Amino acid sequence: LTDRVQAALPPGSTIGILGGGQLGRMLALAAAKLGLKCHIYSDTPDSAAAEVAAASTIGAFDDLSKLGAFAASVDVVTYEFENVPVSAAQHLQTLKPVHPSPQALAVAQDRLAEKRFMQQHGISVAPYAPVDASASLSSAVEQIGLPAILKTRRLGYDGKGQTRLLSRNDIVSAHDRIGRQDAVLERMVPFSREVSIIAVRGAGPDGRLTEDFYDCPENTHRNGILHRSTVPAPLPRTDITAAREIARIIMTSLDYVGVLAVEFFHFDAPHGGPSLLVNEIAPRVHNSGHWTMDACGVDQFENHIRAVAGWPLGSTDRHSDAEMTNLIGVEIDQWRELLTQDPHILLHIYGKGEARPGRKMGHLNRLQPRSA
Amino acid sequence: LTDRVQAALPPGSTIGILGGGQLGRMLALAAAKLGLKCHIYSDTPDSAAAEVAAASTIGAFDDLSKLGAFAASVDVVTYEFENVPVSAAQHLQTLKPVHPSPQALAVAQDRLAEKRFMQQHGISVAPYAPVDASASLSSAVEQIGLPAILKTRRLGYDGKGQTRLLSRNDIVSAHDRIGRQDAVLERMVPFSREVSIIAVRGAGPDGRLTEDFYDCPENTHRNGILHRSTVPAPLPRTDITAAREIARIIMTSLDYVGVLAVEFFHFDAPHGGPSLLVNEIAPRVHNSGHWTMDACGVDQFENHIRAVAGWPLGSTDRHSDAEMTNLIGVEIDQWRELLTQDPHILLHIYGKGEARPGRKMGHLNRLQPRSA
Repeated sequence: LTDRVQAALPPGSTIGILGGGQLGRMLALAAAKLGLKCHIYSDTPDSAAAEVAAASTIGAFDDLSKLGAFAASVDVVTYEFENVPVSAAQHLQTLKPVHPSPQALAVAQDRLAEKRFMQQHGISVAPYAPVDASASLSSAVEQIGLPAILKTRRLGYDGKGQTRLLSRNDIVSAHDRIGRQDAVLERMVPFSREVSIIAVRGAGPDGRLTEDFYDCPENTHRNGILHRSTVPAPLPRTDITAAREIARIIMTSLDYVGVLAVEFFHFDAPHGGPSLLVNEIAPRVHNSGHWTMDACGVDQFENHIRAVAGWPLGSTDRHSDAEMTNLIGVEIDQWRELLTQDPHILLHIYGKGEARPGRKMGHLNRLQPRSA
Repeated sequence: LTDRVQAALPPGSTIGILGGGQLGRMLALAAAKLGLKCHIYSDTPDSAAAEVAAASTIGAFDDLSKLGAFAASVDVVTYEFENVPVSAAQHLQTLKPVHPSPQALAVAQDRLAEKRFMQQHGISVAPYAPVDASASLSSAVEQIGLPAILKTRRLGYDGKGQTRLLSRNDIVSAHDRIGRQDAVLERMVPFSREVSIIAVRGAGPDGRLTEDFYDCPENTHRNGILHRSTVPAPLPRTDITAAREIARIIMTSLDYVGVLAVEFFHFDAPHGGPSLLVNEIAPRVHNSGHWTMDACGVDQFENHIRAVAGWPLGSTDRHSDAEMTNLIGVEIDQWRELLTQDPHILLHIYGKGEARPGRKMGHLNRLQPRSA
């Protein structure tokens, strides 16, 4: 494991970003603020990020020749979504520094590997059992009980690749609904709320790697998609400390550089287990950290860029309380009405073309004077 | 005069920006945040703004064919520096809306027209006299007295095109130093401080044009270049109200849409005149408004974009006190040391190549909890 990042890249250097969605766009805007350029590598044309980046490449993630040319044009590589093939990240790592580590990608993109990783590091997760050719859904239900959620091991996001089982009658239909892919059956736990940690690991004042943490948001979902993050979440100080310690263990174990999101289930009352269970991690900037754009001097995007560029981390201090609301699909059409109603609304629009159902088109932040 | 802006441009529309410097860059980043594209028109290659804009054109400001193609590709035209030829702005206005009005450009780029405009509108300026083929510098000195500053009528900025006269012996050399151009001789007034108003005029909640104002910074200069802006300036409430009223008169008279900066000399003690004299105006976002990027939810760049795009203006509220310091020339090389010393420093680097003496390379903001 390293305890130092590479030497700080000077202004004018280029950060390569795998993926061209809104997270890449906001990373590119943060880099531009620091005088750094971005080169976006995306497998789809007209990406939201390419429009604001100094350079962009459209290519497949298994096109080693295009990946090689991309690596040659950048000083460091990072990513904005966790479904980049690990092989692509490993190939790039032979050519340029890649942050976060490909190992973090491997853990985050496979729910079974993720849960095993947590257990190996003494971090609690909801009861689960693997479901694949050698382990039937029936016996998984037997093992962990109902109600439960069946989740594909790979490529699930925003509630996709998930289905609930309330009784044993649901077993066949549930397995069909996720296309009989390799999966994990997870016990539904009666949590009080969902919260997340937005952590960052990068150069501290002495040049050694250090961790820092934004305040915890409480997150609510609609149709499996994040709807709102509210900061600060009503968590006891001891739970905040515990959540940060979990994020610290994950980052240290994965030789991590950059922003990491950890999603938790939180329990107010005793339930026969710890008050925090890890739901999942994202090895990147995260939707539940978008409130930092307006409530913090240095937001998650800038701190991710600073971390991967080897720059000293900025303060994660929050000057205001905040509420972030996603604008999904045609909700974006309310932009004018929202701005007219309230001149204090802080609006972010991602420059995507078609407002398809479920598509994240923008978000808005509302601030309040800091309460605690 | 209009009392409404054009209909709000939808996200995905393109704002044309004349000029490619750091102000254009920060305007383009603000537009991107709102899902709007920018097309930069600059007479120099490799502009700081082009790198973060969706499109750019390199062309002369008298190239009607290139200006025409530029106009055809955008939905509205604005500018980021006031030395765009008025004829170019007028030509563009026949093709697309241009904000602020070409009339504002004409007033701001000629010191004599500017001072006459102020007087016509009952706004006080320091005693002055024109100096040109028909009016000698000697008789100007006779008329307004010494010490005085001789300033070229056109193309002066950051202290360029200015020279001081302390005695009548300086007359010949002073006139030589400014190349015997048409000029204005201005009495040096014993002001207490320099302050500015960053005002914006655009659509209010009812769709009619309205004005709003950021809090006043106090500005200090080094070698004729802005060094620091500190907010709030120690101004009595009555003077803030008077300064805002002056900005309101200027904007209304010029049929103005967008951000306007008005620089003032402020007098603490009675001096036989009003406590505020207008020094000059800038028909654009302004260096003394860069603190708004970190101390306000909606900064001067976003509000300029909102105004010219016909969007409702955002709140100019300030959540923190702020101090903005310019990084000039090689001062930019301190970036790493600054960030290492203080994780609360908010750094902005403009992505310019060579750190020439006097060149604005970046700035930093420091915030404090709001005092008043």
